[in-house]
Amino acid sequence: MNKENWFLLNKFMVKEHVKNALREDIGFIDITTDVLADKKDLKLYLISKDNGIICGLEVFEIVFKELSEHVKIKFFFKDGDEVKNGDKVAEIEGDASALLIGERTALNYIQRMSGIATLTNKYQKVLDKYGVKITDTRKTTPCFRLFEKYAVMTGGAIPHRFNLSDCVMIKDNHIAYAGSIKKAVEKVRKYISHTHKIEVECETLEQVQNALDANVDIIMLDNMSTNVMKKSVEIINKQAITEASGNVTYDRLEEIAQTGVDVISTSAIVACAKTFDLSIKFVNS
Amino acid sequence: MNKENWFLLNKFMVKEHVKNALREDIGFIDITTDVLADKKDLKLYLISKDNGIICGLEVFEIVFKELSEHVKIKFFFKDGDEVKNGDKVAEIEGDASALLIGERTALNYIQRMSGIATLTNKYQKVLDKYGVKITDTRKTTPCFRLFEKYAVMTGGAIPHRFNLSDCVMIKDNHIAYAGSIKKAVEKVRKYISHTHKIEVECETLEQVQNALDANVDIIMLDNMSTNVMKKSVEIINKQAITEASGNVTYDRLEEIAQTGVDVISTSAIVACAKTFDLSIKFVNS
Amino acid sequence: MNKENWFLLNKFMVKEHVKNALREDIGFIDITTDVLADKKDLKLYLISKDNGIICGLEVFEIVFKELSEHVKIKFFFKDGDEVKNGDKVAEIEGDASALLIGERTALNYIQRMSGIATLTNKYQKVLDKYGVKITDTRKTTPCFRLFEKYAVMTGGAIPHRFNLSDCVMIKDNHIAYAGSIKKAVEKVRKYISHTHKIEVECETLEQVQNALDANVDIIMLDNMSTNVMKKSVEIINKQAITEASGNVTYDRLEEIAQTGVDVISTSAIVACAKTFDLSIKFVNS
Amino acid sequence: MNKENWFLLNKFMVKEHVKNALREDIGFIDITTDVLADKKDLKLYLISKDNGIICGLEVFEIVFKELSEHVKIKFFFKDGDEVKNGDKVAEIEGDASALLIGERTALNYIQRMSGIATLTNKYQKVLDKYGVKITDTRKTTPCFRLFEKYAVMTGGAIPHRFNLSDCVMIKDNHIAYAGSIKKAVEKVRKYISHTHKIEVECETLEQVQNALDANVDIIMLDNMSTNVMKKSVEIINKQAITEASGNVTYDRLEEIAQTGVDVISTSAIVACAKTFDLSIKFVNS
Amino acid sequence: MNKENWFLLNKFMVKEHVKNALREDIGFIDITTDVLADKKDLKLYLISKDNGIICGLEVFEIVFKELSEHVKIKFFFKDGDEVKNGDKVAEIEGDASALLIGERTALNYIQRMSGIATLTNKYQKVLDKYGVKITDTRKTTPCFRLFEKYAVMTGGAIPHRFNLSDCVMIKDNHIAYAGSIKKAVEKVRKYISHTHKIEVECETLEQVQNALDANVDIIMLDNMSTNVMKKSVEIINKQAITEASGNVTYDRLEEIAQTGVDVISTSAIVACAKTFDLSIKFVNS
Amino acid sequence: MNKENWFLLNKFMVKEHVKNALREDIGFIDITTDVLADKKDLKLYLISKDNGIICGLEVFEIVFKELSEHVKIKFFFKDGDEVKNGDKVAEIEGDASALLIGERTALNYIQRMSGIATLTNKYQKVLDKYGVKITDTRKTTPCFRLFEKYAVMTGGAIPHRFNLSDCVMIKDNHIAYAGSIKKAVEKVRKYISHTHKIEVECETLEQVQNALDANVDIIMLDNMSTNVMKKSVEIINKQAITEASGNVTYDRLEEIAQTGVDVISTSAIVACAKTFDLSIKFVNS
Repeated sequence: MNKENWFLLNKFMVKEHVKNALREDIGFIDITTDVLADKKDLKLYLISKDNGIICGLEVFEIVFKELSEHVKIKFFFKDGDEVKNGDKVAEIEGDASALLIGERTALNYIQRMSGIATLTNKYQKVLDKYGVKITDTRKTTPCFRLFEKYAVMTGGAIPHRFNLSDCVMIKDNHIAYAGSIKKAVEKVRKYISHTHKIEVECETLEQVQNALDANVDIIMLDNMSTNVMKKSVEIINKQAITEASGNVTYDRLEEIAQTGVDVISTSAIVACAKTFDLSIKFVNS
Repeated sequence: MNKENWFLLNKFMVKEHVKNALREDIGFIDITTDVLADKKDLKLYLISKDNGIICGLEVFEIVFKELSEHVKIKFFFKDGDEVKNGDKVAEIEGDASALLIGERTALNYIQRMSGIATLTNKYQKVLDKYGVKITDTRKTTPCFRLFEKYAVMTGGAIPHRFNLSDCVMIKDNHIAYAGSIKKAVEKVRKYISHTHKIEVECETLEQVQNALDANVDIIMLDNMSTNVMKKSVEIINKQAITEASGNVTYDRLEEIAQTGVDVISTSAIVACAKTFDLSIKFVNS
Repeated sequence: MNKENWFLLNKFMVKEHVKNALREDIGFIDITTDVLADKKDLKLYLISKDNGIICGLEVFEIVFKELSEHVKIKFFFKDGDEVKNGDKVAEIEGDASALLIGERTALNYIQRMSGIATLTNKYQKVLDKYGVKITDTRKTTPCFRLFEKYAVMTGGAIPHRFNLSDCVMIKDNHIAYAGSIKKAVEKVRKYISHTHKIEVECETLEQVQNALDANVDIIMLDNMSTNVMKKSVEIINKQAITEASGNVTYDRLEEIAQTGVDVISTSAIVACAKTFDLSIKFVNS
Repeated sequence: MNKENWFLLNKFMVKEHVKNALREDIGFIDITTDVLADKKDLKLYLISKDNGIICGLEVFEIVFKELSEHVKIKFFFKDGDEVKNGDKVAEIEGDASALLIGERTALNYIQRMSGIATLTNKYQKVLDKYGVKITDTRKTTPCFRLFEKYAVMTGGAIPHRFNLSDCVMIKDNHIAYAGSIKKAVEKVRKYISHTHKIEVECETLEQVQNALDANVDIIMLDNMSTNVMKKSVEIINKQAITEASGNVTYDRLEEIAQTGVDVISTSAIVACAKTFDLSIKFVNS
Repeated sequence: MNKENWFLLNKFMVKEHVKNALREDIGFIDITTDVLADKKDLKLYLISKDNGIICGLEVFEIVFKELSEHVKIKFFFKDGDEVKNGDKVAEIEGDASALLIGERTALNYIQRMSGIATLTNKYQKVLDKYGVKITDTRKTTPCFRLFEKYAVMTGGAIPHRFNLSDCVMIKDNHIAYAGSIKKAVEKVRKYISHTHKIEVECETLEQVQNALDANVDIIMLDNMSTNVMKKSVEIINKQAITEASGNVTYDRLEEIAQTGVDVISTSAIVACAKTFDLSIKFVNS
Repeated sequence: MNKENWFLLNKFMVKEHVKNALREDIGFIDITTDVLADKKDLKLYLISKDNGIICGLEVFEIVFKELSEHVKIKFFFKDGDEVKNGDKVAEIEGDASALLIGERTALNYIQRMSGIATLTNKYQKVLDKYGVKITDTRKTTPCFRLFEKYAVMTGGAIPHRFNLSDCVMIKDNHIAYAGSIKKAVEKVRKYISHTHKIEVECETLEQVQNALDANVDIIMLDNMSTNVMKKSVEIINKQAITEASGNVTYDRLEEIAQTGVDVISTSAIVACAKTFDLSIKFVNS
């Protein structure tokens, strides 16, 4: 459980996204609800139809609050909690029109986020006993990364870099331009902040040694066999953080963890997450 | 194959989304590439690592064009074409910095879109012989619907309504407010355009009959058993479009099609789509 | 009267437009009011100086609410109500600065909207006894369509399509590209939603017959003489919705209605609407 | 004619508005044209169906250029020119899809702008022999003011202030707050730029005298009888600019001009302008 | 002191800027505070570490209010007040997370604004006894002008034009295009509002005479020696406002004022302002 | 000199800022230039009137390119180069109207940026022989940080964190919430990326020891006397990066550098930078 990370998503950053999502879904006017909804208040329950980690409750709330100031919400769980099929997750009461217009968008956020949190959590649990962390990648849905990274954190894992400006990641092409890992790292160090780390993608033991010599912070062990990965971890010997990457499947997690790497990165926890089944039950009051 | 739908996505509407996605991914500056990329041109190939329907090629192109005016692109396939593992899909040449900064975002669009097009196509193929169309729902990723609906169309299916303003959809709550299906439809007709259709969600034969009596355009057969669905189709007798919905799985598609419905809607073609595997190979020129 | 459509305009969609309108009108700072207004509250009355249909009251309110949280408003009418010269329509009390800065923008919305509602209502009243509906077109003021379409609805008419994505409208050029009405309709049906209608512009009886054969939803009888229009309605015989268009003047409305068409479309109800005379009277409190 | 003011509208400021107008009109995708238009180029003529002043040609062009880079345009007139029914105003050639999608939005701008330019010009012509200028007000369509003010200038008149920050306008309420015209003017002068003018609304000769004593730049003669207006002009005796306002009708223009005022302001030139009739004729090439 | 100008900055116009500044500073999430701040309220004091004019208190407040609705603020000074090193300027209480995330951005506004207000005030004080006003220029930080102009006003000076649309400023190039000052002024008068002033940059006595003959509102005495400036003022003889510009230093202010000019413009009051030292002291409650 | 960092500022991220700056400066229309500029091309030279590091040349170019497509530019220096009073920095030729409208905004960027680069360079030069780097802070002008951080990099220094999401910075309050430095660091590590660093503000040797024990990446030596700072550096003994902060003045730089710290952070290089004197000389062609 990660009961504490309830507060990690900044409301301020969420609101603009929610407004755009509502504009996308409303279009012009909701020609059904705007015509048919009367002024009486309505109540709805958010019910889990799945087992897993709930995530996105504050976003769910913001959707309705953007549509009407007269919405009251009561949560029975918080982000990171485990919910079971049949659990009542929240109760929302307010303006009928806001509830009917907002329900689909609210669910769209929370179902995707809970799906990612749940899958991430499944991966992370396997690794907990090894003290290894799973992490995601930049393979996220365009313009939806904030929510996907937050879901990864809610699932108990750590996010990889948020964007291209918060960690240096030196790849093949970059090395080719500079001439060598050493030269690339030296050039980068002249410009980037001392607050930023440098990671280098390595596919061979030779590259690993070069990265180590260049004193980088993180060495990515990319597409390595388990043996080569193990050997790399030994060479590195805690002088840099080791990140296993490439061909990471659920079934291979323990095998990779046993090589002694610090972190395992995979796009699967985001890209392969199923939509989490949640439904809304209306109760006319 | 749907070679003709190449032109369905309006470039004008795509550019703003791409700009926001690039801002999301760049953050401040790309501290690796902006420092290390030199001015020489670079070439990259987009290679398929999967079998299925390619989708999003124009979006892929727009990503690089937003980053640099000096990008030339050559496509060997077009949206809706079938590609196979190993196929070279496109060749892009231009400003090294633009190519290195844009590759991840460009892939993020096209991998998700091709995944949806491929799954949709798999569903649709089962139905082709019945003359039945698969359609999606409003269960889409917030702020990414344009791309997901387009992928559904590229896969050979038809989209359901784009948003709340382009088709009336009368559900339980709406009926409750109005008093009956008949009253709800009458009230809506007073306000909405003659260019818009009215759809009613029905779960029982009685509701189906009421919807038919109210002369609606589309009757959703929601969560019905195959038998009740079949009975509904007979009652409706082509006087309204019939749309099967609820508990739609791939395995049940033919059984549903055999009831004689016109359209089958499911969120699965979007929500359960796998990321399509595509990779970028750089060729330093 | 259309007392029920009070609730048709979604506040959520209005706010961004109002903010932009206020920015347009304020520029930098209101160098008169910001300097001279003191902190005491002010009260104002919105007075009708005209006879007709009032429209836009919620927008009027939103203008002031965006400028200050301390504004209280009391409406004596609601959208769609008939008001007479001299009627007190609303009473607003609050922050002097907000009231003085907002009054012009608030009036600019409501005067244009009430003008359209009033003219539309005049047209619609002529047609009520024939059960025919007047409708507007896409000839609207750029970036102001939401308010103009809503005013048309408030006037008792129905809007035509909101935009290019909520109804197919096949015109000469489209037919020329496809080869025939039949081919154009077939091609379109392969891609568009079953939730969308297809309308075809017809100028001759032969085109009407072709459209009918293609099973379209709406046939526009475009620029037809009254006789040809009548003949078209007979041929169509309720198998499609008929929409009269072109050369629609107020004086010709009944003549057109008597041909038996379902809907008459004209840009006049928006383009020829006069600004509705409303004034604001300040009462220093 | 005002052939020189062709260049007054800054393209840079127009583009964002045009993009929003196109988004408003397209919605999601143009389900007719995006499906049916083929790739061949198309040509269209912009034809005048009315007599008057053409205005908005650059905006017209920008609409198509935003939709496609492959559009060529040839103008036979320029903003401020007089056009007659039947005149070919422009010829546009390019991407069929861009032309078909953009035509309505392009016309919406130019028809409204030319209507205002034409009516303004009719008012101004009456006044030219008196050396008096007609001017508009802040009664404009929300978020469309730039285009309406420019049309007024194109019609040969001068605009009133663009917004609340470019001229002080002291009204009843402001005077009440300050205690007197004198005190209001003094307070304002402490804060505002020496580059800004001060105008005071006066309804009586006493107010006129007070405004004159306060050394203001412009005195509005508001809702005055012709006699009082004349008397005011004599008192002011060119020590301030005089602006007649209120109850300004076309028929009363000369009577007002003969009082010797410098400027006559009226919302009529914008609010009462008819849509100028222009049509587009497609020529398949 | 300018205690009255507390109210000059329109909250409505400030909020969007503050939101963008917070987005700039937060990036994705505040990985320190979002993780570590607990839910208890926090209190902070804003303490002056400098002597001068405080400016931007409302902006300071808006920063925190955008982050949380649960923030209470108490000001002990208002904009334009003189504060001394050690003064407690404000007390803010609320949501710990909002206070910790917002403090830097809030200070960034107020430190720059108070710095400008303080320097402006220092310049203005020298001139007060001459009845001369100091004014700024368009040399401001891009996208931050509203705050810098407001600070100038708070310091007791007047702003120069806000932007290119609120006063005509004819320079060398403009004169060259028109042929002469006279021709340039005449051409401009045909288009611009009677509510706008015309200023001409003059460097010689001949230009001054030409500008005077053209009846302009403001004559800029640009880069003149004190003698030529004095001579110019005599020639102009109050028939136009005189504005000294160029080579304005603090030490030369009195010398310039003694020439009898009305206004002295300089970019120094904005460009050379020091950051005003203010600090935040947290008090855990 | 830093000739290589010419390419560090991503054009894509700059354009939106420039558009907003131009909108800010234009307002509505440029009532001088839009009226008076004719269509002939104009040429201008950018001349340095100061000695120092030039910075912002690409931004300078983008300003004009946003205003007109017909602008050609030739640079004689590049960002990071040293320029001297009198040097011709660039030559721009194009549309007269674009050049006259854009010059002020273009200068506003480049003068501020070059001022910061120049001051930063002066600070950095003192430290070069010690291998110590100067760095900035988050004390930047709201919404202008990208340009200020880039100028710091151009001046030869390194930027501190870009925003709150790219490095953890634990301060007093955060420690208080967690109970100790150790607990704060442990809690943060559970959530943040392995790609992010952790910095702790320390004012005493005890705090330094605690931070060291917690294995943090950077230890800020905040407001320490030179002696305590030196002692801290010895204790830390290269096990963490050391950053001196507080009371950093130009005169004290060497003294601080001699303590052996790795980095010295100060807001002075941004906050105290003078506007760099650059002027534009027009050459009518």
